[in-house]
Formats: sequence, C-alpha cells, structure tokens
Amino acid sequence: MRYFITLSFDGTDFHGWQVQPGAVTVQGCLNEALQRLFGPATSCVGAGRTDAGVHASKMVAHFDVSQPIDAAQTVYRLNRMLPPTISVSDVSAVDDEMHARFSATSRTYHYYVTTRKDPFRRRYAMRLPFTLDFERMNRAAELLLSVTDFTSFAKLGGDQKTNICHLRYARWREVEDGVWRFEISADRFLRNMVRAVIGTLMEVGRGRISPEGILDVIAAQNRCAAGESVPACGLFLVDVGY
Amino acid sequence: MRYFITLSFDGTDFHGWQVQPGAVTVQGCLNEALQRLFGPATSCVGAGRTDAGVHASKMVAHFDVSQPIDAAQTVYRLNRMLPPTISVSDVSAVDDEMHARFSATSRTYHYYVTTRKDPFRRRYAMRLPFTLDFERMNRAAELLLSVTDFTSFAKLGGDQKTNICHLRYARWREVEDGVWRFEISADRFLRNMVRAVIGTLMEVGRGRISPEGILDVIAAQNRCAAGESVPACGLFLVDVGY
Repeated sequence: MRYFITLSFDGTDFHGWQVQPGAVTVQGCLNEALQRLFGPATSCVGAGRTDAGVHASKMVAHFDVSQPIDAAQTVYRLNRMLPPTISVSDVSAVDDEMHARFSATSRTYHYYVTTRKDPFRRRYAMRLPFTLDFERMNRAAELLLSVTDFTSFAKLGGDQKTNICHLRYARWREVEDGVWRFEISADRFLRNMVRAVIGTLMEVGRGRISPEGILDVIAAQNRCAAGESVPACGLFLVDVGY
Repeated sequence: MRYFITLSFDGTDFHGWQVQPGAVTVQGCLNEALQRLFGPATSCVGAGRTDAGVHASKMVAHFDVSQPIDAAQTVYRLNRMLPPTISVSDVSAVDDEMHARFSATSRTYHYYVTTRKDPFRRRYAMRLPFTLDFERMNRAAELLLSVTDFTSFAKLGGDQKTNICHLRYARWREVEDGVWRFEISADRFLRNMVRAVIGTLMEVGRGRISPEGILDVIAAQNRCAAGESVPACGLFLVDVGY
C-alpha cells in the first residue's frame, strides 16, 4: 500500500530535505515519525530535494506500508510527533505506480524579496541591498520561456542526466508595498536552478546584463556565464502537480 | 524639536516595549540607538506599552532633540543599528505639543488564531486546541460596543485612573482557510485588556458562556468573571491614530 503525504515546513533550521548523517533534515524527521508509527523499515521519497534553508508551503512525499492505515489518524499522529516547523496537511492512499518524484509533472516555486527592512519577513525573504528594475527583469524572464536547455543554471557536478526543462511561467509580481515575488513553474528544475535564474535576473535588473542578454547566458551552456545564486531563505516550494 | 518615529517589531524575543533593567526591550533598543546618534540624554516615549511577546506592525514613539535632524538619514541609520527584529519606516518632525501617548486618539490590534498546525505562523498566531463558533463570538463581540466600563478585563493592580474605553469595532474575520483574525479598535485599551477580551470571547465560542452572557461579565466589574488571557504571540498592534 502506497500513501502520499502533503506537508509544509519552515526550512530555516533544516539542512534541506534529504537525509544526511549528523544533520537535521525534513526527510529525516519524517522518516523517524513514520518509523515510530509503522516500523523501522518505513521511509519516504520526496517530490524533490530542497536545499538547506529553503521552505515549502506544499511538498509531497510517498511511503509504503504493508497494511491499510487510517489516513486522518496518521495526519493527527504525525503532527503530534513532528516539530512545530513541519506540518502534515494530508495523507492519502494512491496507486502503487504513483511515485512522489517520477510521477510529478510540475513544480512551482516562489521567491520573495523586500525593498525595506521587515521584521516579519527576515526569515522568509531576501532583503535587497540594491534597486532593481522589475519591468526589465520581467522582459528577460519572458525570454526564458522560449528555451529549454538550462545547463548554464545547473549546479556544477550535478547528477542529472539531462538539463532540459520546460517552463510554464516565470514572472515578478509586486504582492504588497515593497515586497516582490518571483513565480516560476516547470515540469522539473535542475539542482540550484531557481536561485541561479533569479541571481541572473537580478543582474538584468541592476543593468549589468540587457534583457536579451539572458539568451547569451543560456547559449553559453556554462554556469559561470550566469549570475550568483540568491540566498535560500526567500525560496518556497509552493506546489507539486501530478 | 520633537520627532515621531513609526516602527514595527517582531515581539517574540523581547520582554515587551518598556525599558526594564536586565531585560531586552524594544524601547531599550531604540533608546540605545537614539543615544548613539543624538547623545546620552535622548530617549523615546511610546504610544503604549505592549506586553512581552506582543508584536507591532505599526507602533509610534516620540523623542526630542535640541537641533533639527535629517529625517531620512535618521531612518537609515536607526535601521542599520537596530536588530533585524525592529524596523523603522518613518521619522517626522511634529509640533512640540504632540505626544506619542497622550495625543493618540485610537489604537487598533489584530489577534490571529489558526485551526491547523502552520509552521509559518507558529510565532505569530495561537493554535486552537478546541473548536470555536466564530458566529457566536461575533454576536458577543458586537455587544461589547454598547458598553464602556471594561474593569472586568483590566489587569489587577493596574495603574490606570479610569477603566472607561470607547470601542470603535470588534469582530472576527476568516482571513484565509483555517486562519481567523480578531480586529479591535478603541480610543484606548487597559493593560492586558485585548487578550482578556479574546479569552472571554473564546468561552463564548466554546459554548461555556452565551453571547449575551458577556454583558454579565462586564456588569460584574471583576476580572475573575472574565476568561483567561490568550497567549501573547498572536497579538499585533497594527495602528495608532492621532
């Protein structure tokens, strides 16, 4: 029997999603709770691996058990066991062929930046130390939809077999006075890609690269052509589609 | 020369607004920064005293200096000196008769509760351990507008001369799925009053007091007739009017 778990987490104090010896990770906490409920062989597979400090308002994982379980009770018991920084909103039975990672057809991320000091967003947004031209950045972001090879934004030494991604949208939006959000959705993302894309768009927003220049960055197929990665704290995984 | 400062702060790690020996307070941090800028005699007076753990998205204070100052530069320098948990959004010259506390004609507070575990609101909302009937609570909240003596919600041993307050509104609103906000505005509030009013409304919401029963609580003029105070972390001072 396979089950999907839907969860959210504040990534501030986690060393990312994936289990690592000697480090507190989201998957590690979840595995520990699942093992207490369903036995030591239980473990979960996530829709993807978020980096240290990245948050999720919606993450999906699957786990297998030998017997059917009470889904509502499992949500309740997991929430009691997990720390306040992780919350499970749903547990549902799925077909055995469904896989949290391989069956996912879309992932959506949001990235927050603030132009002003904001005590309530200090853990959840990048505070901009410079001024950005968001209109210019949106012209560059739109050009990203016309390409599919994102090698220039791939972490060096990544283990993916292909660097091809199909973007559905990529745009900056002012969500409240002084707070901007970058929204990006694709079938898949390469390791570190979202933060490298945003860092490159910021080079455009600061006037160091022209909007069309982002196509040269992509054509280079070289991580060094792109901008620096932005800090993790502003990034949220907000949806995984199946 | 008198100046008004508008600021916001995350109250989680502060022992409230007011300076206290041996404790980190918002006023203490602000005084320290003002003294570094304008000399050791400088200190500020707040619009009110928020309790330990209470947040403010808009708080107002005043301070006096002997010479005119550059307001924009003062905002910039204060933000550089203050911790990430306090942000100054404005500094403006005012008439000498304007007083942050005595000239204020209205204060508005919001209180957040969540019906579900939410990693991102764990520092900013009370998680409800029971179910509440918000419609019933709103019937009781409306009755509060018909009275002015809030002795039953005053902290025992408070130093205020009168327990008379004029409420402008008091209502619960669902701001997103599973998140409710209590909005209350008045000319003034007694110490601890908002959290005692909310605790009493929750007794109504749990069916332990009828909506009309809140008038009996008020008529008693006795703190023991009211419900327990709710936790500080859900409370935000959101506006001070002059």
